Amino acid sequence: MPQTTPKRAEIIAIGSELLTPERVDTNSLIVTRHLNLLGVEVAAKHVIGDDRARLTEAIRTALERSDILILIGGLGPTEDDVTRDAVASALGRQLALSLEQESILLEKFRRINRTMAKNNLRQAYLIEGAEALANPHGSAPGQFFSTDRGAVALLPGPPRELEPMVEHELVPRLKPVLPPQVIRVRTFRITGIGESDLDTLIAPVYTKYTNPVTTVLSSPGDLWVHLRAQSDTEAEADALLREVGNPIAELLGDRLYSEQPDDTLDTVVARLLRQRRATVATAESVTGGLLAGRLTDTSGSSDYFLAGYVTYTDEQKHQILGVAKDLLAHHSAVSEPVAAAMAQGARARSGAIYGLSTTGYAGPSGGTEFDPVGTVYLGISGPDGDRVVRARHGGDRYRTRTLATQGALNLLRKSLLKPSARKGL
Amino acid sequence: MPQTTPKRAEIIAIGSELLTPERVDTNSLIVTRHLNLLGVEVAAKHVIGDDRARLTEAIRTALERSDILILIGGLGPTEDDVTRDAVASALGRQLALSLEQESILLEKFRRINRTMAKNNLRQAYLIEGAEALANPHGSAPGQFFSTDRGAVALLPGPPRELEPMVEHELVPRLKPVLPPQVIRVRTFRITGIGESDLDTLIAPVYTKYTNPVTTVLSSPGDLWVHLRAQSDTEAEADALLREVGNPIAELLGDRLYSEQPDDTLDTVVARLLRQRRATVATAESVTGGLLAGRLTDTSGSSDYFLAGYVTYTDEQKHQILGVAKDLLAHHSAVSEPVAAAMAQGARARSGAIYGLSTTGYAGPSGGTEFDPVGTVYLGISGPDGDRVVRARHGGDRYRTRTLATQGALNLLRKSLLKPSARKGL
Repeated sequence: MPQTTPKRAEIIAIGSELLTPERVDTNSLIVTRHLNLLGVEVAAKHVIGDDRARLTEAIRTALERSDILILIGGLGPTEDDVTRDAVASALGRQLALSLEQESILLEKFRRINRTMAKNNLRQAYLIEGAEALANPHGSAPGQFFSTDRGAVALLPGPPRELEPMVEHELVPRLKPVLPPQVIRVRTFRITGIGESDLDTLIAPVYTKYTNPVTTVLSSPGDLWVHLRAQSDTEAEADALLREVGNPIAELLGDRLYSEQPDDTLDTVVARLLRQRRATVATAESVTGGLLAGRLTDTSGSSDYFLAGYVTYTDEQKHQILGVAKDLLAHHSAVSEPVAAAMAQGARARSGAIYGLSTTGYAGPSGGTEFDPVGTVYLGISGPDGDRVVRARHGGDRYRTRTLATQGALNLLRKSLLKPSARKGL
Repeated sequence: MPQTTPKRAEIIAIGSELLTPERVDTNSLIVTRHLNLLGVEVAAKHVIGDDRARLTEAIRTALERSDILILIGGLGPTEDDVTRDAVASALGRQLALSLEQESILLEKFRRINRTMAKNNLRQAYLIEGAEALANPHGSAPGQFFSTDRGAVALLPGPPRELEPMVEHELVPRLKPVLPPQVIRVRTFRITGIGESDLDTLIAPVYTKYTNPVTTVLSSPGDLWVHLRAQSDTEAEADALLREVGNPIAELLGDRLYSEQPDDTLDTVVARLLRQRRATVATAESVTGGLLAGRLTDTSGSSDYFLAGYVTYTDEQKHQILGVAKDLLAHHSAVSEPVAAAMAQGARARSGAIYGLSTTGYAGPSGGTEFDPVGTVYLGISGPDGDRVVRARHGGDRYRTRTLATQGALNLLRKSLLKPSARKGL
């Protein structure tokens, strides 16, 4: 297959805190993922402290070797924020106040009713020839300019500002700078299976191919499979993705919750709730509010989320959710019948179509011989009746709570996928 | 004050896998921790692929700038393992087979009953003038040699080989190369002020000093200030931290919630609740369960967290929390009186000593002219009476919810700090 020489990039993360034993640069992973999708390989990454001279030198060296240079961080309002200055001196360009950026900044402060401290004005200075990259999630704009052999970009350090800027501002500006090459990606979002079980399941399919390249990523209760096909034409790349992806999708079954890379289990559940015109209420013990927090994370969630009850004591489970006292005494609060009664209680108390419950031992202390730390019961009560699943997780408190939250959302997703849930339409 | 110039180190991690979107170099954190304890600052970190030419150049550049160079990885037996070759060529030194290392290798293979593949012999080559560093957990030895201004070390990539080698082999060899020196750190954890306001407040103090070095880190509603002092003796370093740190602490006032680097607002609030033998219940609207989630994040939280109510509808606010219907009709659910009534309701409903409430507009839709998107009311009801604070946040839904959660926790912290809260003891 004919193949143009790929462009090479270097990434410099700026910040003295990234040179301490406590912090690691993860921003470069976000940038790398997007660069790879454009066919750009990352040849080196660097972390430099808030030291203008050293950074200037690092920029100069990187530009001698690489086509594309991405700088992350050091764009804030303080003396420590040296990136703009360093890029300007490395390239022998001027920094000039952009009146447009100044008024954008002033407007941002006006909107939150705060006077802008004078040092914030540093953020309105652009490098000669650079274009500002909009930052709707923070105050510092990014900057971008193309060079003879590629481009340079300055991006903000906070991940919530960085990620959308890379996607919406950087990628569209890099594309015209790069040799035409088609890279197509197919993403599977998966829950309800562990990473090594997933690999055992799908490796027999994907290991037969080097194009597309297959990558498996995991976080607790949530997995991604990325297929990345490279070709001369879109049609060819898409054919490769079908050839490998379709058998994988079949193997995944209902553990595959979306093929949209921007989806999360939360947005998928939110969409299903809206489509089915369903409503939900939660009764949480082990997840302590995290489940309600996830269900209300999406704007407009008041359309389907009615109420959440975090009942940490037996007394509250009885009083608020109506769980019978002898049920609690007989089976204990961490049990299948109590999980069912909690889900029923949430449903009855709120008038929601679905009640969702969690109870379990998050640890590190607690648990019984039969239900050791890490055991959770997840309940759902709905028009189809009640269901409780028991799961036992390894790992720490955070992991148990996260997996229980994810599991409860998945329980709701599966109920909403049943043909009977469509009757509401 | 007498001050020897601190030695500066650079760390290069070698391995193409560290340039993918999936992997991050954490080995350098181990090395950094040990270097800092020896008074050595890490001035820069790099990740280079398995590319001999690029690595050679990176080594040459690093040695021009820094006293100590630590290379991690690329010491294995394959063609990809280029570190030995690159260091030798960067310094114009020879690589020579060490008969001692060859016999150690052969012995290692003999002990596990395996024939040594020929390529393993690469691992027995030492750079001219280098000393081998024993590797009881793997096959490749490390290497160390001192230079005019410092030292160079080659260390293996697998963490279980790296960590003991740093501690037992590298540190004892670095000590004689270094000037005797002490580094001490002081950390402030801060909430209730924004990053640029914080900087305006404390910059007049810290900018007067280059030692200690001051770093400000921020995440929504949570800030860190690190002071790092370098000196010949512990007493001198501590005196520097007092000289700069004490005026900063005074300026911060009760926005300073801890000086323990491992503390979070959550652990500080948890500790205060325990100390005061207090209990808490939450009534959430805008934070949708996140506040309860944070309060139950710490193990043993059932000792002080009694219940959480996520009341998303007016009906639920009335039914569960007893908020009067005409209060809701008159003032709307996002208002000072409703925030107060929610906090009172949570307290009354659960029997907790404190009731904590949140209501507001997280957006992106909703809001009124007087209370636009981003406005939150945070309420507390306790033995001292009721208090409601109003705050208006810029940014997106995530930021508003996070800042509201953080603000509510801070409200509770401040109440628990009052002398009257100690009566419980």
